[in-house]
Amino acid sequence: MDADTDQEQGRRKGRRGGGSDARRDRRKGGGMESQRFITRKLKPYELLSEEGLALIERNADIVLREIGIEFRGDPEALAIWRDAGADVDGERVRFPEGLCRSLIGTAPATFVQHARNPERSVEIGGDSTVFAPVYGPPFVRDLEGKRRYATIEDFRNFVRLAYMAPAMHHSGGTVCEPVDVPVNKRHLDMIDAHVRFSDKPFMGSVTHPDRAADSVAMAKIVFGEDFVDRNCVLINLINANSPMVFDETMLGALKTYARAGQACIVTPFILAGAMAPVTAAGVLTQTLAEAMAGMAFAQLCRPGAPVVFGSFASSISMQSGAPTFGTPEPALVLYGATQLARRLGVPFRSGGGLCGSKTPDAQAAYESLATLNPTLMAGVNFVLHAAGWLEGGLVSSFEKFVMDCDQLAMLQRFAEGVDLSENGQAMDAIREVGPGSHYLGCAHTQANFETAFYRSPLTDNNSYEQWEAEGARRIEERANDLVRKWLADYQQPALDQGVGEALDDYIRRKKDSMPDAFT
Amino acid sequence: MDADTDQEQGRRKGRRGGGSDARRDRRKGGGMESQRFITRKLKPYELLSEEGLALIERNADIVLREIGIEFRGDPEALAIWRDAGADVDGERVRFPEGLCRSLIGTAPATFVQHARNPERSVEIGGDSTVFAPVYGPPFVRDLEGKRRYATIEDFRNFVRLAYMAPAMHHSGGTVCEPVDVPVNKRHLDMIDAHVRFSDKPFMGSVTHPDRAADSVAMAKIVFGEDFVDRNCVLINLINANSPMVFDETMLGALKTYARAGQACIVTPFILAGAMAPVTAAGVLTQTLAEAMAGMAFAQLCRPGAPVVFGSFASSISMQSGAPTFGTPEPALVLYGATQLARRLGVPFRSGGGLCGSKTPDAQAAYESLATLNPTLMAGVNFVLHAAGWLEGGLVSSFEKFVMDCDQLAMLQRFAEGVDLSENGQAMDAIREVGPGSHYLGCAHTQANFETAFYRSPLTDNNSYEQWEAEGARRIEERANDLVRKWLADYQQPALDQGVGEALDDYIRRKKDSMPDAFT
Repeated sequence: MDADTDQEQGRRKGRRGGGSDARRDRRKGGGMESQRFITRKLKPYELLSEEGLALIERNADIVLREIGIEFRGDPEALAIWRDAGADVDGERVRFPEGLCRSLIGTAPATFVQHARNPERSVEIGGDSTVFAPVYGPPFVRDLEGKRRYATIEDFRNFVRLAYMAPAMHHSGGTVCEPVDVPVNKRHLDMIDAHVRFSDKPFMGSVTHPDRAADSVAMAKIVFGEDFVDRNCVLINLINANSPMVFDETMLGALKTYARAGQACIVTPFILAGAMAPVTAAGVLTQTLAEAMAGMAFAQLCRPGAPVVFGSFASSISMQSGAPTFGTPEPALVLYGATQLARRLGVPFRSGGGLCGSKTPDAQAAYESLATLNPTLMAGVNFVLHAAGWLEGGLVSSFEKFVMDCDQLAMLQRFAEGVDLSENGQAMDAIREVGPGSHYLGCAHTQANFETAFYRSPLTDNNSYEQWEAEGARRIEERANDLVRKWLADYQQPALDQGVGEALDDYIRRKKDSMPDAFT
Repeated sequence: MDADTDQEQGRRKGRRGGGSDARRDRRKGGGMESQRFITRKLKPYELLSEEGLALIERNADIVLREIGIEFRGDPEALAIWRDAGADVDGERVRFPEGLCRSLIGTAPATFVQHARNPERSVEIGGDSTVFAPVYGPPFVRDLEGKRRYATIEDFRNFVRLAYMAPAMHHSGGTVCEPVDVPVNKRHLDMIDAHVRFSDKPFMGSVTHPDRAADSVAMAKIVFGEDFVDRNCVLINLINANSPMVFDETMLGALKTYARAGQACIVTPFILAGAMAPVTAAGVLTQTLAEAMAGMAFAQLCRPGAPVVFGSFASSISMQSGAPTFGTPEPALVLYGATQLARRLGVPFRSGGGLCGSKTPDAQAAYESLATLNPTLMAGVNFVLHAAGWLEGGLVSSFEKFVMDCDQLAMLQRFAEGVDLSENGQAMDAIREVGPGSHYLGCAHTQANFETAFYRSPLTDNNSYEQWEAEGARRIEERANDLVRKWLADYQQPALDQGVGEALDDYIRRKKDSMPDAFT
């Protein structure tokens, strides 16, 4: 990628990135009216002081310089680091003061991830916030309330729901693991589902470098070879093996994507007490060091390749060792890490509606919102697991997916801030109504009532008597209805016939080229 | 109250207020270890800009000057305003530019509400946040899951639970309406319950000036006459009849409390679209105008009497007219109103765990946390309805009370911010563990594991298999257990025998002095 790419132009000129004009005339997706990614009108909350942030940065520099990070099973990575001036001792890489930070300087502060429908392209970085679905669960909780292994049809249904959800900006990646498809062919069907059943942006496979290469190849079929080389069309989840290790698989995927100019979210995955110290400052320090090493490595693979500073941080129960979610300590880390990313000049990704609950009960809701609310307040740019996460990430829940999406829509509305226009000030209404009357019928209310308040498709605010007459239903029962309705109303977005056939052909050839593997 | 009162001293010298030293040696309350009120180490989130706030202040000044506020059914109040230089036209009072703001200048920015156990006294204002229980519901959802009218025994049980809850700093007021007690005698039993079954601070009655006077008289029995005159021991909820009206009942209670030097929370109670415009800026303008008029009136009754700028703001469904909760628009109002109160130099009160749900399900949790989280982030000083609110405030729920209290304890922990001490930085741990190992057994983890993470008494983080083997229980079932456990473990805090007898005598005399009334 040379300095004259679309991404670079987008960055320099503050535009949302090029390349979409030519595709502007493609048809819009069907289904409900989708909202663009969030452009926050509210400034982010700065939890840590300048001094606190500088202290953590100094400590992270010590980790990079004195302790170092291991790049395991990848001699090429070690050679790249040696050439870049790092101190390589076996698989341990120690970084001279400022090396990682300096390398990260070539990464864009903001980039566009293109969707095949340009109306659904998202900006990642700056004042933007993008919500993406849950990623990774092997199980689903289905519409009959059964917890079972996920299938490719479940996967497609989550893609359909994400397509339908107005405040879900992204189709995500492994929205659930389709375990009925061989593990070495699964990624083909997953990419296929994202392309075919949605027109929102999506994520590539990271479980093997070959699968990353397949993801890029399929993206080229959809977007065109030249467009993919000059633009980000895939965003990909590269987890560190905390503490302080990157493994062969993730490095292989990272190299593939970075060299293809596609975005890597470099995410230290930390359960504090196990993969990092028990303190928030300790988690932040280690997270920053690991993320910097990974993002710097991506820049060595291709300067200017989009990277995202990722953080998945929660705690463990010190009694049982089980992960816990929605507690105060990870929220502190989330705010702090978002600040560190802003100072580094790169976009930031965190988790979203995380919870440990087995059912979509009040525990699930409290825990999920205790993470979701801070993502917006902190100014997180890419919120993974924003909807559908249940049971510590083991289960994708259809019901919780739409429940969380309702919360996302509220956060999107909140991010618009307070309207201070003349209509927003409503002085005419206050004058018209005066003391002791009511606003129900006044002109201002009449003019604004349709859009004045967010309307939830799920919450019940009727009288107790009416609620009881209607069956005394809980929100997850209403959510079950809504999932069925969205799936019934769903209309597949049009896909260019040639593209569809070329994808079919690619998938068939790849599947035929190797025996099924299930482990 | 002259300029030399304990409150004035407390304000001037930045102390937490006097008078408690003498009572320092009283025994501490039993039960679990209670946390003091929150002293936020995190700065509040400033949602509105300086320009936005100034605009709303100018608009509120226009409301006060041109439209005015009605003080109904209280000729004395009108005379007081006339003497103060306001323009009184019938019951409509219009305020010369700056009059209300200038009068509010005598109100303390921060004051102490004393508890009979000085360890439980709370600071209201500044960086302090105090959580208080739900206020007002006529119904309870009991431990058998039945929705029924509340009784005085329910009331006492909520007082016991609030006493037991570590992060509940206040005993509250009408934690539920004990409808089995005559309406004209109810307040006596309620005050009695707060004094006898708890040693946390509490609220007085506002339903009639005589009942406010009884509240003050009973407080004098508990705290001593002189102490009550010089210190705040009661905080009281004075609602405006929005839009722009104060009625006879509330004005009577306000005058009684303010003249006794007790705190008045002046609260415009607004469901936007009905009692105020549908826009956030409109709600903020009207709220500010009404609250300023009420607080200024309290200062006319007794300069220096503690006042709190209150706001209860939510929306209505524009389809059904039903109140809605946990939506984005009231959260915007909450942030803005807290800022307006800070600029005015008075403490601020909002609602807490508000929800419309009929059961403690995920709707209840999402909605409640969508209000609770902003209270802390905004820097609200007094959070009423922080626990136990269900069904739009019609029901006090025992299960939801302890569920909310769990969230309050997490917010209290969050408010401590990030520990940046050497132990917090944990560099020794990072050095000790190094790449590829784990922190479970390292010295730093061993030294910190007991206090490192908040431990919820309610959430389940065990494996699915274990959860299922234990009955696949939802959080509200575990909450039911916890309520029973707290009530079983509850030990009544000691009360001076003479105080107890004097209270008994006062209540008996008052009850004998009038026939029962039930409406």
